[in-house]
Amino acid sequence: MDKILRIDMGAKGGPKMTESPLGEYAGLGGRAMTSSIISSEVPPLCHALGQDNKLVIAPGLLTGSAAVMSGRLSIGCKSPLTGTIKESNSGGQAGIAMARYGYAAIVLEGNPEGSDLYKIVINNKGVSIQVDNSLKMLTNYDLIEKMKGEFGEKIACISIGPAGEMKMGAASIAVTDMELRPSRHAGRGGVGAVMGSKGVKVIVFDTTGLKMRQPKEPEKFREANKKFTEGLKSHPVTGKGLPAYGTSVLTNILNEAGGYPTRNFKTGAFEGASAISGETYADLETKRGGLATHGCHTGCVIQCSGTYVDKNGKFISKQPEYETVWAHGGNCGISDPDAIARIDFLDDTYGLDTIEMGVAIGVAMDAGVIQFGDAEGAIRLVNEVGKGTPLGRILGSGAEVTGKAFGVERIPVVKHQSMPAYDPRAVQGMGVTYATSTMGADHTAGYAVTANILKVGGFVDPLKPDGQIELSRNLQIATAAIDSTGMCLFIAFAVLDQPETFQALIDLLNSYYGLSLTADDVSALGKKILTIERNFNMRAGFTAQHDRLPAYFSKMPLPPHNVTFQVKDEDLDKVFNF
Amino acid sequence: MDKILRIDMGAKGGPKMTESPLGEYAGLGGRAMTSSIISSEVPPLCHALGQDNKLVIAPGLLTGSAAVMSGRLSIGCKSPLTGTIKESNSGGQAGIAMARYGYAAIVLEGNPEGSDLYKIVINNKGVSIQVDNSLKMLTNYDLIEKMKGEFGEKIACISIGPAGEMKMGAASIAVTDMELRPSRHAGRGGVGAVMGSKGVKVIVFDTTGLKMRQPKEPEKFREANKKFTEGLKSHPVTGKGLPAYGTSVLTNILNEAGGYPTRNFKTGAFEGASAISGETYADLETKRGGLATHGCHTGCVIQCSGTYVDKNGKFISKQPEYETVWAHGGNCGISDPDAIARIDFLDDTYGLDTIEMGVAIGVAMDAGVIQFGDAEGAIRLVNEVGKGTPLGRILGSGAEVTGKAFGVERIPVVKHQSMPAYDPRAVQGMGVTYATSTMGADHTAGYAVTANILKVGGFVDPLKPDGQIELSRNLQIATAAIDSTGMCLFIAFAVLDQPETFQALIDLLNSYYGLSLTADDVSALGKKILTIERNFNMRAGFTAQHDRLPAYFSKMPLPPHNVTFQVKDEDLDKVFNF
Repeated sequence: MDKILRIDMGAKGGPKMTESPLGEYAGLGGRAMTSSIISSEVPPLCHALGQDNKLVIAPGLLTGSAAVMSGRLSIGCKSPLTGTIKESNSGGQAGIAMARYGYAAIVLEGNPEGSDLYKIVINNKGVSIQVDNSLKMLTNYDLIEKMKGEFGEKIACISIGPAGEMKMGAASIAVTDMELRPSRHAGRGGVGAVMGSKGVKVIVFDTTGLKMRQPKEPEKFREANKKFTEGLKSHPVTGKGLPAYGTSVLTNILNEAGGYPTRNFKTGAFEGASAISGETYADLETKRGGLATHGCHTGCVIQCSGTYVDKNGKFISKQPEYETVWAHGGNCGISDPDAIARIDFLDDTYGLDTIEMGVAIGVAMDAGVIQFGDAEGAIRLVNEVGKGTPLGRILGSGAEVTGKAFGVERIPVVKHQSMPAYDPRAVQGMGVTYATSTMGADHTAGYAVTANILKVGGFVDPLKPDGQIELSRNLQIATAAIDSTGMCLFIAFAVLDQPETFQALIDLLNSYYGLSLTADDVSALGKKILTIERNFNMRAGFTAQHDRLPAYFSKMPLPPHNVTFQVKDEDLDKVFNF
Repeated sequence: MDKILRIDMGAKGGPKMTESPLGEYAGLGGRAMTSSIISSEVPPLCHALGQDNKLVIAPGLLTGSAAVMSGRLSIGCKSPLTGTIKESNSGGQAGIAMARYGYAAIVLEGNPEGSDLYKIVINNKGVSIQVDNSLKMLTNYDLIEKMKGEFGEKIACISIGPAGEMKMGAASIAVTDMELRPSRHAGRGGVGAVMGSKGVKVIVFDTTGLKMRQPKEPEKFREANKKFTEGLKSHPVTGKGLPAYGTSVLTNILNEAGGYPTRNFKTGAFEGASAISGETYADLETKRGGLATHGCHTGCVIQCSGTYVDKNGKFISKQPEYETVWAHGGNCGISDPDAIARIDFLDDTYGLDTIEMGVAIGVAMDAGVIQFGDAEGAIRLVNEVGKGTPLGRILGSGAEVTGKAFGVERIPVVKHQSMPAYDPRAVQGMGVTYATSTMGADHTAGYAVTANILKVGGFVDPLKPDGQIELSRNLQIATAAIDSTGMCLFIAFAVLDQPETFQALIDLLNSYYGLSLTADDVSALGKKILTIERNFNMRAGFTAQHDRLPAYFSKMPLPPHNVTFQVKDEDLDKVFNF
């Protein structure tokens, strides 16, 4: 990872590429890389779909190495959904391939004139950029089948579906998994629309003969990796809950905690939760011949993914994630696990963020477009998005636009991005993260569910404001750092509870790069990233007034606890006092 | 005008009204009244369609008196379109009636539960608030016919059409004119959606036996009014251009100046301009038996309005205003005066801001939804808005939502509100006003066309940045003050050029209220209003970064002058240095 590939899609005469050494970006990976490039090179007031925005794809510092859990890649840009800086990250195989080709970042710049659609192919002969208008409006699954036909099975792809081509605010970027399914997504913030504006449909990496990246101190690295793996396997969340039930293990937990936003955030408990719980999904997968325990990329030892099939054993989708099941399930009053999985597949193949889509449909249900609980109606709506009908254009633009179009007051967004599957009134630490994150409402930015609900890394009463600021602050700092390593965020459960696992993570970085980082250095990195991102957002016009939840969360109590969001504005303004 | 009528539409058991003396709002009228109440009483971060927003209707200080040109009323709220404070004002007869009933303001507060629709009737017996669900989704013209049937011809109405009921961002509030046509509109910023959220369809004033408001010093007042009238009649714009051709007198002027935004702001000159000029409209009106010179309210001596009929002499619409003709004409590549007038009627009867609608359709044309120049297509689109189809919901939410839904980069808005009919690159003073106005892009906030194009109040080269800050600043201050008097803004042409006409305006105020204001006091009032509004906006999260035009105006040159917007950001930040 010693070079940056820049492709100017707007160059006169067609796309032009340049490779350069890392220069000022040396030593950065993942989110640190994407946010640094965006903050330095993108004018904060540019139009996110315009030629001045850039799409930066960056594997983490350890991606492509033998370090377990290190397969993630970050995708950064100015977000067309939020208007903020954006880092959206994904599992799958492409980050590993990219890192092994030596690319610390691929930067798509400029916008092509005209409407040609491009594919970028990277193999051992180099990089080629080809017009391929036969790919227009292909779904992700159809696209990948076509790429397999063209390039064989030894590939990894980064692609957009029709939603990205239509430049929708909910458009994701798909990354293929180990089975070459475009099922892992950089979902949030409309990153797919930016890729669409650059005219790039797919980046194909030929993985033939790619070599593992090698550490500077192999013995120490091997030892650290072993300890790290042991730590993950010994923690109840990463060693048991996630492998057995996937992320949907949270459904029953959040529902019992009264923090499961139901029917567009009206209540915190859903009567149909058990029908769509992780336990139910795992059970169905086992009975029907799917797969309940599965990894989304090489080197995963948590295996929280899965494969979901119908009654006849036919593939429906990858096992839908907790937030997806919530967004299209409880949030829409839907308790049919098959219907939810079918919607998950549609989101994946059209290239849509499942959270943004589920919340948009919930808002549309609140407006009476269809009724809460109407699973067939929800499937129809997602198909409208994929086809780009006017109603689909509304929904595909996200929950806020949907609320505006239908005159709805209850729109659960922060900085124009939909809140995920944790009601901020019953999980107040998440409320702090939603309000203050540099990314808009985003659970992964500072996952306070840990101490609020799971009692991981201590316990902070989820219904009270006390201690939430510090909790969210520390998590946001840690997350920014983890997002730069290429590690899956789920390592945090073990890292928070087990000092020796945290040390093993640091040892992995040190032995790989021949460094001597301490915990303080990791924390400093997280703070630096957040500061860079906050600075971009400030220059883009974001103020303390944007670090707020919609007013109704402070006014309308959430059953069953009948609690409102209690954290004070002046305390929210202290999150970044570091 | 010694009392405020407050109606709490959200009160338990149904709407509750209270009348109170002016208290802290004594001495205020029009925009000074609406902005003061909104700034003091509405939480800046509330949802504009939620119960905490208020809709304030306030006649100007001289409205209802014998002062010529004083019939305007201001409507204020937090805008659902811009998120800023909003004052949108209108001619017509209702302001006069309201002032003569003694109401300095009517404040609609709270939101009703349920979906009942209300009418408010004010007559010599008092105020009554009645559920009337038979009014649901009536167009403005149909509604007023119904009100005439119910209450006779001696009424004045303030109402919303279906767009307001659907809470669209482009929804206006209609005010009836002297012929009881709902043809005058508080158009901008979605004020109609706020009235819709309050569940109020119409406010009917019985005008039977209403008495002229009397000045404290009748003789001085009469004298000032006479001088003021003479001043208006002697100025070429208010005495000749506007009466003869209406506001569309500007079409040829702006087109020749290269500042007529054409086909979604791509060029500054429209080859079809002469076919839709004020001269053409006046000619058609005269030939067909319409009316080219007409006032929108009692006491108007400029008479810039008109009545437009078809070939058979049948009413199509009131004479469409310049900005309307531009929005649906040149901005959409349409040069059919009848089609534009038909769209004007549809906007009026559905209750839509003609500027926002025309710009939204222009953006949709840029996205390929229909072709530029397709007049029948444009009529069809406006009908979709009136019916609330999904495509109509997109367009009715305004140009920015339309641009988001269709992934368009070129969206000519500031603070989420569409730019009117003057390209900021070729009329750079207007660019300063668009960028910095407390209202979002709004030509009436500081009409720099005066000195930039018309050579009224001096001359400032429209293609250069020099002098534009000072020009816009002074106009914004003066406008805020004029908007508080109840005077039609068009008096500004004479007031700017003729010191004695300005003095006559001050004498009108002084003799009416027994005051001794000077020009400095008027200026101080304007500054105070702007400061109040800026303060609200700051608390709502608006910063210097929002006082900017979309980036493309500084990058893409506008033919025929091939000029970009040249005013520097740091200079824009000086507009409110007073």
